[in-house]
Amino acid sequence: MLHKIINLTVRDVRFPTSLEQHGSDAMHSDPDYSAAYVVLDTDCGLKGFGLTFTLGKGTEIVVCAVKALAGLVVGKSLQEIVSNFRGFYRLLTSDGQMRWLGPEKGVIHLATAAVLNAVWDLWARAEGKDPKRIVSCIDFRYITDVLTEDEALDILVKAQEGRQQREDQMLKEGYPAYTTSCAWLGYPDQQLKQLCTDALKSGWTKFKVKVGADLEDDVRRCRLIRQMIGPNNTLMIDANQRWDVDEAISWVSKLAEVKPLWIEEPTSPDDILGHATIAKCHNRVMFKQLLQASALQFVQIDSCRLGSVNENLAVLLMAHKFQVPVCPHAGGVGLCELVQHLILFDYICVSANLSNRMCEYVDHLHEHFANPVVIQDAHYMPPKDPGYSCEMLESSVKRHQFPEGDVWKLHQNK
Amino acid sequence: MLHKIINLTVRDVRFPTSLEQHGSDAMHSDPDYSAAYVVLDTDCGLKGFGLTFTLGKGTEIVVCAVKALAGLVVGKSLQEIVSNFRGFYRLLTSDGQMRWLGPEKGVIHLATAAVLNAVWDLWARAEGKDPKRIVSCIDFRYITDVLTEDEALDILVKAQEGRQQREDQMLKEGYPAYTTSCAWLGYPDQQLKQLCTDALKSGWTKFKVKVGADLEDDVRRCRLIRQMIGPNNTLMIDANQRWDVDEAISWVSKLAEVKPLWIEEPTSPDDILGHATIAKCHNRVMFKQLLQASALQFVQIDSCRLGSVNENLAVLLMAHKFQVPVCPHAGGVGLCELVQHLILFDYICVSANLSNRMCEYVDHLHEHFANPVVIQDAHYMPPKDPGYSCEMLESSVKRHQFPEGDVWKLHQNK
Repeated sequence: MLHKIINLTVRDVRFPTSLEQHGSDAMHSDPDYSAAYVVLDTDCGLKGFGLTFTLGKGTEIVVCAVKALAGLVVGKSLQEIVSNFRGFYRLLTSDGQMRWLGPEKGVIHLATAAVLNAVWDLWARAEGKDPKRIVSCIDFRYITDVLTEDEALDILVKAQEGRQQREDQMLKEGYPAYTTSCAWLGYPDQQLKQLCTDALKSGWTKFKVKVGADLEDDVRRCRLIRQMIGPNNTLMIDANQRWDVDEAISWVSKLAEVKPLWIEEPTSPDDILGHATIAKCHNRVMFKQLLQASALQFVQIDSCRLGSVNENLAVLLMAHKFQVPVCPHAGGVGLCELVQHLILFDYICVSANLSNRMCEYVDHLHEHFANPVVIQDAHYMPPKDPGYSCEMLESSVKRHQFPEGDVWKLHQNK
Repeated sequence: MLHKIINLTVRDVRFPTSLEQHGSDAMHSDPDYSAAYVVLDTDCGLKGFGLTFTLGKGTEIVVCAVKALAGLVVGKSLQEIVSNFRGFYRLLTSDGQMRWLGPEKGVIHLATAAVLNAVWDLWARAEGKDPKRIVSCIDFRYITDVLTEDEALDILVKAQEGRQQREDQMLKEGYPAYTTSCAWLGYPDQQLKQLCTDALKSGWTKFKVKVGADLEDDVRRCRLIRQMIGPNNTLMIDANQRWDVDEAISWVSKLAEVKPLWIEEPTSPDDILGHATIAKCHNRVMFKQLLQASALQFVQIDSCRLGSVNENLAVLLMAHKFQVPVCPHAGGVGLCELVQHLILFDYICVSANLSNRMCEYVDHLHEHFANPVVIQDAHYMPPKDPGYSCEMLESSVKRHQFPEGDVWKLHQNK
């Protein structure tokens, strides 16, 4: 079966999350969680679903970029794409004219992720993969000084030992998660308390707190959370790029008393030589240098900012080489649904290690997906449906499509 | 006079340069030099013109992004903008929802540059500036560990000495330039020879050659150019990000015999820790680190990839602090027209130094501008018309507008 792609549609889907301050942090005070949502149609009826995550305004720019990439996808067969997936990745990221708009960063890379996520979804519905197949999906351009194709294959082959046991373990216990839902910056203290109480009851032991807007507020909120969760649970803080380098050092030292495990995005995501202790990067070249410079102690991959599974594979393998734990970024719209696949793959097929590893979880918007994530006792339970889990319910898409959906007609002042 | 901005229009203007291989290099084999072209209208009739440079396909994405930013500009007065220009810069680059699409990189940053270039043009047509005014345009976020506001002011105040002499010198002699027009990758040898002969006759002494597609070709073409220009003229090579780090080292060693002054963009523009000896970066945070890491010997600013004059000022000042010469990137559509202002400012108001400094020049598409650059004996002669020199002829815009202009109707297969 060739599965020829005969059509690509992309839609601007937005959820008015800013109304209740969900997702608020030091740099994003009123995000409306949104997605550029891609559907691939094939001649045999099989579909592929993909998306990239955005914050509302500007989603139409990503939609425009996906449309510009569509011409490189429609007319090709899945067979043709995956038989040289590295080449196809490069076709999208290195088009002689569109490359100028990135390269491999910003709007054009988000659009690339949305398209490739849909291709992976389609492929996942069609067949299985082996280590050689996986390595052939990675574009090693610019990272061969740190990881070659042979080394990557070697890592995957070695990790085949114990794979079945790890798979069984995941199916039984799931992958450890932490929650960011309790402590968005815009929530009042009473709401923080209630959410913490509820989360503790549901078995959560690891909590992330948004900081960076006001030091006094941060001290009060972090103390409150630490008090609620006790000394033995884990607390992380996230400044969402709010500080300059020196500012970060002095601010964080005043929050040291609450013993955060990590400080996330203290400064510009481009500042490798700054004091980034953890980072959400936009491509494999940035991750490569952060690893080379020992500038991070945890790697936060993102299923929609990097160039889909292809580029995430490169980062997972480099992180393994440098023995740095991967703790994915998630939340938003669909990021949890997508990233669970990557982190389960990391454990079962690459790192074989759970120490100091956990995957972010945010409890919003899952109800809009055909196969939402399943969380059990603060663990991600492996998805059992074929595909990459980013198919949305058609009724949700219709209601939230911007600007014509019913939800947006109601909030026309947005 | 408040100069209230009452309208912003943006158009997709493309020139079919790929037909004759103008602009061809190792990563961009068929660029159609293009621009997202912005015009601001004010209530008093004064206009501001701005643009950002692109390579053809995808220009519509930048146009879409400019439209998304328009709401932050229209309705404001020039007075209001420049009285807190740093705040206005941050309004465009740090919008709580659109920031996610960059930040400060890719499509959204190119769009920011187009809009801000138009604001600077408008401002230049209205009035003058002093050091304090200039410093107030710079967003120091993420660079204060290397350059503070006080240090920046100090540099500008010190450079006031000798300013008048340098201004007179520039008006008389112009700013030294080098040419990239002779050696695009797609030109046959006979054309290289002819273009070199012509350029030498016109007084050119510094030549840039595109390399990186095929080593044997590169050796032949570089030897040919070195032979044409003789041992005392200057030759630079540019690989346009073609190589991995190790590949760059071995390839360049085979071109060492032609004695290139610099090797431009040997690898990924994101790879600070790689062997980048010169770089075109996408924002001030990247330039900051390249300077900190001593990873470049020449700074190539770009008037349309950085966030307009505002961000270029930050980079010029940091380069001065590290005593690294600035040799701007130009060419494309309008880049020469824009960047001449920056490099003249650098000499007259910041560096006061011409040693090892020169500005790129490419001899294409100047005829479409209302005030094209004037080159005399391989020097940029200072522009004397008010503004930022990026107003295009309306007849040119109409003919080249994509896809409805006459030129594109003729090349419908593009």
